[in-house]
Formats: sequence, C-alpha cells, structure tokens
Amino acid sequence: MAEFIPPGTRWFDLPSPFPMKRGGALHGAHLAYETWGQLDTDASNAVLILTGMSPDAHAAANEANPAPGWWEWMVGPGKPIDTRRWFVVCVNALGSCKGSTGPASGNPATGAPYRLDFPDLSIEDGADAVAALVHALGIERLACVVGNSMGGMSALALLARHSGIARGHINICGAARALPFSIAIRSLQREAIRLDPHWDNGHYDDAEHYPENGMRMARKLGVITYRSALEWDGRFGRVRLDSEQREGDDPFGMEFEVESYLEAHARRFVHKYDPNCYLYLSRSMDWFDLGEPHGGDTLQGLAAITGLEAALVIGVKTDILFPIQQQEEIAAGLRNAGIDTRFLPMPSPQGHDAFLVDEARFGPAVAGFLRSLPYSQTLTNKVA
Amino acid sequence: MAEFIPPGTRWFDLPSPFPMKRGGALHGAHLAYETWGQLDTDASNAVLILTGMSPDAHAAANEANPAPGWWEWMVGPGKPIDTRRWFVVCVNALGSCKGSTGPASGNPATGAPYRLDFPDLSIEDGADAVAALVHALGIERLACVVGNSMGGMSALALLARHSGIARGHINICGAARALPFSIAIRSLQREAIRLDPHWDNGHYDDAEHYPENGMRMARKLGVITYRSALEWDGRFGRVRLDSEQREGDDPFGMEFEVESYLEAHARRFVHKYDPNCYLYLSRSMDWFDLGEPHGGDTLQGLAAITGLEAALVIGVKTDILFPIQQQEEIAAGLRNAGIDTRFLPMPSPQGHDAFLVDEARFGPAVAGFLRSLPYSQTLTNKVA
Repeated sequence: MAEFIPPGTRWFDLPSPFPMKRGGALHGAHLAYETWGQLDTDASNAVLILTGMSPDAHAAANEANPAPGWWEWMVGPGKPIDTRRWFVVCVNALGSCKGSTGPASGNPATGAPYRLDFPDLSIEDGADAVAALVHALGIERLACVVGNSMGGMSALALLARHSGIARGHINICGAARALPFSIAIRSLQREAIRLDPHWDNGHYDDAEHYPENGMRMARKLGVITYRSALEWDGRFGRVRLDSEQREGDDPFGMEFEVESYLEAHARRFVHKYDPNCYLYLSRSMDWFDLGEPHGGDTLQGLAAITGLEAALVIGVKTDILFPIQQQEEIAAGLRNAGIDTRFLPMPSPQGHDAFLVDEARFGPAVAGFLRSLPYSQTLTNKVA
Repeated sequence: MAEFIPPGTRWFDLPSPFPMKRGGALHGAHLAYETWGQLDTDASNAVLILTGMSPDAHAAANEANPAPGWWEWMVGPGKPIDTRRWFVVCVNALGSCKGSTGPASGNPATGAPYRLDFPDLSIEDGADAVAALVHALGIERLACVVGNSMGGMSALALLARHSGIARGHINICGAARALPFSIAIRSLQREAIRLDPHWDNGHYDDAEHYPENGMRMARKLGVITYRSALEWDGRFGRVRLDSEQREGDDPFGMEFEVESYLEAHARRFVHKYDPNCYLYLSRSMDWFDLGEPHGGDTLQGLAAITGLEAALVIGVKTDILFPIQQQEEIAAGLRNAGIDTRFLPMPSPQGHDAFLVDEARFGPAVAGFLRSLPYSQTLTNKVA
C-alpha cells in the first residue's frame, strides 16, 4: 500500500500499545510531523497545527523540505504564524496515509497492511496521539493549538481530554459535533468508494485494482461542498469548455468549465490518497461529538474545557459543510466556560476552503490573535 | 424499457414531425397530462402546472385516478389551486418516463426504445410541446402557468417563446438559467449513472442489468440538495439507528438516521425511473439559459416576455439547488419588463423541496395570487 509522505517528515513513535477509544490498540504506531522555528528554552512558544482530513504535515516550506506547503502564506518568517516568534508543529492525522500510522500502514501482527483490520478510528484517538507528541517534544503547554476543519474537531478533543495543554486556541471552520447534512455528504462519499468493485472490501492495490471511480466521485462531491455557489457563479458562470477540452464524442461528456475544474481536482487526488484511510477518517468525523460524555450536550462538552485562556473562532458564511452556526456554537460554549473568546464570521465567498485561500481575511485575523497572546519575556526579547 | 405511467393519464399527440431545438425531430411523439375541474366556455380559467424533473402528471386525485398525487394539498376543490374555479392541467415533461415521449419510449424508426438515439433535449422543446397541448385543448390564453423547480425553467421558456400564452405566472423555486453549483451537482449525478457498468452506454434493462447503484447515488445526492441542513438538524440530529436497522456486520454500514432516510429515498426511486430519461432531463436543465438568445443576458431574456400581466415568484431561503438569488433575479427581470410582480422569500426550513411539503406557507401564497388574478364574468358567477 502506498503512503504519500513528503520529504523532511519527522517521526514520533507513539506509546505501544496505544489504546483506541472504541476498542483495540495500535502497536508500534507513529505520527508524522514537521516543525518550523525554534522552541524556546522555557518551551512556551509552541503553536500546533491540526489539519483537515486530506493534508499532510507539510504546511509550509522549511529547511527539510523547501517545497511550498498547503498553508504557505500562513506559516513562515514574518507571516501570520510567524516562525521567528513561534515554534510551529504540524501533525499528519492518525489514520492518514501521509506518514502517520493508518489503515494503509503495515500491521506489525501480520506484516501486511492493516486495511480494514485497522481498529475503529475516532477523532479522540488522534487527539490523544497528538498530546503524546506534544509532551515528547518537551512542551508542557502549547501557546496555541490551531485546528482547521477536521483539525478543529481534533483540537477541541485535545483541549477537552488534556486539560491545560494549550493557553490559546484558534478554531477555523471546525465543529463540536457532526450534523446530519455533513454526515449525509460523507456517507455518500464513502458509499461511492465502497460501491466501486475495485474497492473489494479494502483489498485493492495502487495500480489497476484501485477504486479510482469511487475516489473520483468522493473527491468531486468533496470539492462541491468545500467551495460555494457564490464563488463559482463569479468564477465559472456558464462558461463552456472549448471543443479541444471536451471528451471526444461522449454524449454526456464535460461541457462546462465547472465540470472540468471538478475533474482536474479529482485527477489530482485519486491514486494519491488511500481509499481505506479516506473511509476511516471520514467516519471518525461522523462519530465526533464533543458532548458525548455529557449526554450529547455540546455546551457541556465545551464547558469541560479547562485551562484555556483565549480563543479565536472563525467561521465562513458561505460554508455549507461546517456551517457557521457550528462555529457560533463553539464560540458561545467557550465563552460560557469563561474563556476569553472572539468569534469572527468571515464573508469570504470561497466556502469551507476559504481558510486555504482567503489570505487577506484569514492572515490578519490569525496574526492579530497570536500577537495578543501573552508570551514570555524570552520571546519578547528575541523578537525585539 | 419500462415507463411508469399513472392510471387515468390522458394523451396528446404532438405535431409530427416535432422539431427539436438542438437538431433532429420526434415522430409520433406525445405528452401525458391530467386535468381537474371544468374548462369554462370562454376557456379563460385554465391553470397549467409544469413539474420538477421527476414527478408524473398526477398532481392530485381526480376522477380518473383517486390516488393522492404529489401536490395533493395544493390542487382540488377548495384547495389553493381551487378546481371549483380553475380548470387545471398538469403535464408530464417531454423526455420523462412517466408517460410523455422520452428516451425510454419506442423509436418509431426502429421499433426499439430510443435510448441514446433520442435527440438532444432542451427545456425549450418541452415548452414548445406544452404550448401545442394548450392550444389543442382550445385554450388561447392560460389564466396562469405554475412552474416548480425545472418546471419554473419550463414556464419561463414557454412565456418567452409563446408570447401572450398566459396572463399570470407563479414561479416556484425556479431559475432563468443554470448556475455552476447546480450544474456541478447534476454533472456528478449523471457521472454516477454513467460510471455504473450496468448503464452500458444506455443499453441496460429493467431487471438485472439496471444501473441501480448509479441511480441510488444520483438520487441520494439529489435528496441531499433538495432539503436543507437546517431541517435535518432538527429532524435527525445525531440520532442513531437501532441495531436491527443496521446492515449486519458491514463495517461501514448505515449508523445514523439520516443515512437510512437517504437509503429509503433511493430505494423508492431506483427501478421506478428510467436512467436515460434522468440523464436527458438533467442535462436539459444545465443547458437552460433564458438569456441565450440575448448574448447570455438574463434580464434581457426576461424582458422579452410579453403579454404576461402578473407574476408571483417564490424562493426558499434554505434552497441550495435553486438558490433564492435566482428567484430574486426572475422577479427583478419581470418587474423590469413592466409585469406586476410579487416576490416572496419563504423562510421554510425544507430547502428546495419546501413547495412540496410546506403547505402552511405555500398554500396561502398560491391561493392569494390566484384570487387576485382577473377572471371573466362567467367565472365570477360560477364561484359565487
């Protein structure tokens, strides 16, 4: 099974066995991560980034890998997450195929890939793994944990299960629980993969027997829900492909630019992401409910977060996958828990993905919040 | 090829040959329709209903078929479209498999079903066919044409291409052109059908070689876009299925109520709708652009509608498939054309499908508009 690991990745061996929330345990598992900047002597300047479902740990160029990362404009010297001031850690999620142990990794019990023998994966498992990494890096308390999309779920799980692990938190397009519209979308994506005969109950390969059609459908549906109708009206309108771009004489082939945009996204994704990892991570989001230990009461789940001092919660008005009401809910719950919380509703047209592309709005918001965090004298001297 | 025709359907033979907008012609084609109430002697009390993509012509119970129809609470004696006052006609769209000629119908040239030999189908073809039916029924001028969803596109095409064919118009969740988000959704639905090996370039059958998985995916994606996240939050929340409702030990089987709701919708749909008809009608919506004869200028397309006296345009704030901006656009365009136009933005939580279920809001709106229409002395006497 192919894993898709960027050069320069660092590795952290998880405690073994590593118990999983819904049962079972991982043996010899690891997390993939990358870092930027220097950890201060008192380890007070660490910023942790938890990603959405598909990115790897390469958020931005660094010495180990100068290739641009998926959040290049956000992370670096003089950038909103300023690596002259902050020691930045980005983690590839547990269960992914981008370096951390997941269903595509070798099962030490058999020597073969786990596939569907990987134990049930929860957002909370990923959070526990990240907590172990943070402590192993010598960090008792993060200056800030930043979570985007699924990473916003992971960050809340981390804060709730590991009291005091961070002073600050930025939750971007996250959610304290999965709601039925996004469950329906993800369920349909998983069904598309599972219906592909090449999926074969998880026993595909990376070549001819890869469930390409299922992954293509899942990705296209993903892209549709990651962006917004408003953005596409302006970007594509009703523009047609020219005849060279069309698919020969296929009577139902692509005709509009928006169709070719989706197709290009799908082509960049298939064969670069492991289908079983997709299924596991997708389902972990459906299962996530911060209120679960409190009878499903989300506000109580948020109220159980202690030791956090300040939070910035950002939502996007055009986000249909993690709608802005969910970020309002997070902000209300954190405020209710006595945490100094700012809520920023962004008018970005780009939907859920705005945090990846709307530099003009997200850059200053993140930079401003980080500047407002209390930091140690050591840091002040260094930056000055 | 199965067609799915309700009992009591009436038939209208289209002029033969019937030329199609994008080329080719139909020979011996027909429309399926149903009626309610009595046409007055001066034929001034006719209300025409144009449907969304999937319904048949059986909008409500009538003498020929007492089974409840898809708009039962809207059409009937004393109901918002009051069949004591109005002679109501509902037409099954050209290209459908519910009685009107479409890709599942027999091709008189070969005796076999058309399948993909059916000529390119446009919304405008359906509108021209309906205009022929209206005139054949002895109606020079409709009192009102009501169009829902795709029927809202068809109604605009009818009004623009057949000047003076109606005095009044109710456009419900319609659009004057397809925009990229809905094109993307429909393109993905068509891809799901086309990727199903049983589709076989249109050469499936209705039994073992029916593209059930493709149609299931298309329908589920449809239902997701027909409703709204808001409605589902209240209706399903995070409620789980009980263990009996789950799919045995399938590790990625249904777990949440929303998944079982989608599955039930899909099961009711597959094998009851013809996949090629689905492809043709779906694509006809993508192609629709009332502004096409005016260089893509929608307002000019709406301004070209003449002879219409009054219009009611209804949109739903939670509709993601035909978003309310599109109904605002229709209303603005009709007003700009000098037509007395009311725009009603509905706060219904049910999304695009609200017109099928939100009786409390849509009933009075439609009834009020129809009451306000000028009608002949004959009618006044009859109702009084």
